[in-house]
Amino acid sequence: MHVLLAVDQAIGADILDTEQILADELRSENSYVSDILQHSTRFRGKRLRPMLLLLTAKACGGIKHDHKVLAAVVEMIHLATLVHDDVLDEAATRRHVATVNARWNNETSVLFGDYLFTHSFHLASSLPTTYGCRCIGRSTNIVCEGELSQIKERGNLDLTEETYFKIIDGKTAELTALCGHLGAFFACADQATTAAMEQYGRSLGLAFQIADDVLDLMGDEKKTGKTLGSDLDKQKLTLPLIRLLATASEPDATEIRRLLAQPDDSTRERLTPYFERSDAFEYTSRRAQSLAQDARRQLDGLPNSTAKRILADIADFAVQRTF
Amino acid sequence: MHVLLAVDQAIGADILDTEQILADELRSENSYVSDILQHSTRFRGKRLRPMLLLLTAKACGGIKHDHKVLAAVVEMIHLATLVHDDVLDEAATRRHVATVNARWNNETSVLFGDYLFTHSFHLASSLPTTYGCRCIGRSTNIVCEGELSQIKERGNLDLTEETYFKIIDGKTAELTALCGHLGAFFACADQATTAAMEQYGRSLGLAFQIADDVLDLMGDEKKTGKTLGSDLDKQKLTLPLIRLLATASEPDATEIRRLLAQPDDSTRERLTPYFERSDAFEYTSRRAQSLAQDARRQLDGLPNSTAKRILADIADFAVQRTF
Repeated sequence: MHVLLAVDQAIGADILDTEQILADELRSENSYVSDILQHSTRFRGKRLRPMLLLLTAKACGGIKHDHKVLAAVVEMIHLATLVHDDVLDEAATRRHVATVNARWNNETSVLFGDYLFTHSFHLASSLPTTYGCRCIGRSTNIVCEGELSQIKERGNLDLTEETYFKIIDGKTAELTALCGHLGAFFACADQATTAAMEQYGRSLGLAFQIADDVLDLMGDEKKTGKTLGSDLDKQKLTLPLIRLLATASEPDATEIRRLLAQPDDSTRERLTPYFERSDAFEYTSRRAQSLAQDARRQLDGLPNSTAKRILADIADFAVQRTF
Repeated sequence: MHVLLAVDQAIGADILDTEQILADELRSENSYVSDILQHSTRFRGKRLRPMLLLLTAKACGGIKHDHKVLAAVVEMIHLATLVHDDVLDEAATRRHVATVNARWNNETSVLFGDYLFTHSFHLASSLPTTYGCRCIGRSTNIVCEGELSQIKERGNLDLTEETYFKIIDGKTAELTALCGHLGAFFACADQATTAAMEQYGRSLGLAFQIADDVLDLMGDEKKTGKTLGSDLDKQKLTLPLIRLLATASEPDATEIRRLLAQPDDSTRERLTPYFERSDAFEYTSRRAQSLAQDARRQLDGLPNSTAKRILADIADFAVQRTF
């Protein structure tokens, strides 16, 4: 059975409740705002983060109302970062639909992202204690630092693997780690289990981001439904390129750097021969697989359950998308 | 005695504590982030919002530690909106210092604004209950809607006073109203006093924004230290212009609209003769004065104190800046 179908069977009703909480929070009497909200529902994604949080909760003892609120909060934060990312990347489409900046303008996107951020915190503050707010505040701080580091390193053709991993740990894995943490903590899991589920989320997030970076380099725009090659345009080095540069011959590396330093529409294509005689994608795949395996290992201490099995399958799914 | 000197004597030590809380929250080991933080301290403003919150607290019974935390939170939110405003306005300087977007780039500004937002919520969640988080979440939602409405109405040369007031109520007065509310509430003031102090903040914020809008039209860049005329550039109609258009003769109104529809560096100057034969600034001043008076009236129920007197003086100061 496909993993998304299994998710639907296991927690479909809880996901629907989460969607309802999200829709109730994101409601506006202002027609301009409600138009943007309406439009943005069209690039609704996989809801990976709510899924992770709810499945973790289920695997750790059971889903409560607070979990659904938190799942909506985390999704809203993710949406906010996507809206701002699309401004930064000057992306025209996301999930086959015009981005907010393309349809309206950059100003609207910046403010709409802010709107989603503030609503996520507002929703989080509806919980009985400040614990959720504190975790969410802390993680979003780290997400922003990760994104800022990414900007700092743009155009750095000597980016190391270490810095790359630091960046994606902040900008992506921090939020998936938070899902694991909140799912377990609010299900009253013990400290060790909560830490393991947080690590599950972190390793999964890293694997997922690596797969996403590979897609940006070699994916098909028609299939993925988003503007690709933007990492090259923005001179953001990702794992396959870091490996390619590290292992290429001196003359090849020089030529690759020349291509990367002046990106245009043909850059992706012109890199192909270099990738073909390199182990860069194989190496990247190995790294992602190993992270997915680490994620699965974190589940070992949980009692057997459907939710646990699906969490393991999601780890596989995260890397199968590309490799 | 000048009002700022009186503020300093009355709550100088509390303002310093607030600055320390702010500095402790905004600390980063990431050199890129800490450079931006360092730079942004150079356009430190009047700290109007922390002042309002702390003076309200003092006038309502006394300043507690929570007030200082909340004052830092509200200032951080204000800073976040300024950073994003500077992106939207493509402003080059603020308080005589290069804006983050001018010194770094728009991407960095967007993310740095997000960073300030998430840190403000993180700091708010350090309070013992969710009450502060809820108020702050709710108000920042309204601020974002106000800013989005402003974008929507850009270029609308038929903007009504009613819509103008709705916009500034959201984008500016909501946050100053929040300062009044939190100052009183956390000093354990009764419901009526808390409502009055919230209204004080709201009326003051409206008066303040009107004065700011007048400055943008007729201020001196050297004195104000910021890029002026940006409302004209962005075709944002403000109260003096709305009044000017509403009262001008048919041919004058046509000519004014023509000027507003194609703004350039000479627009401010070319509007001068129309303003000179109009009551627009006088009318605007009257509206601002009346709001300042309403703010002062809200203080009537408070026992006499230095803090109360300063709050009344701030209401005068808000409108004296320009008129």
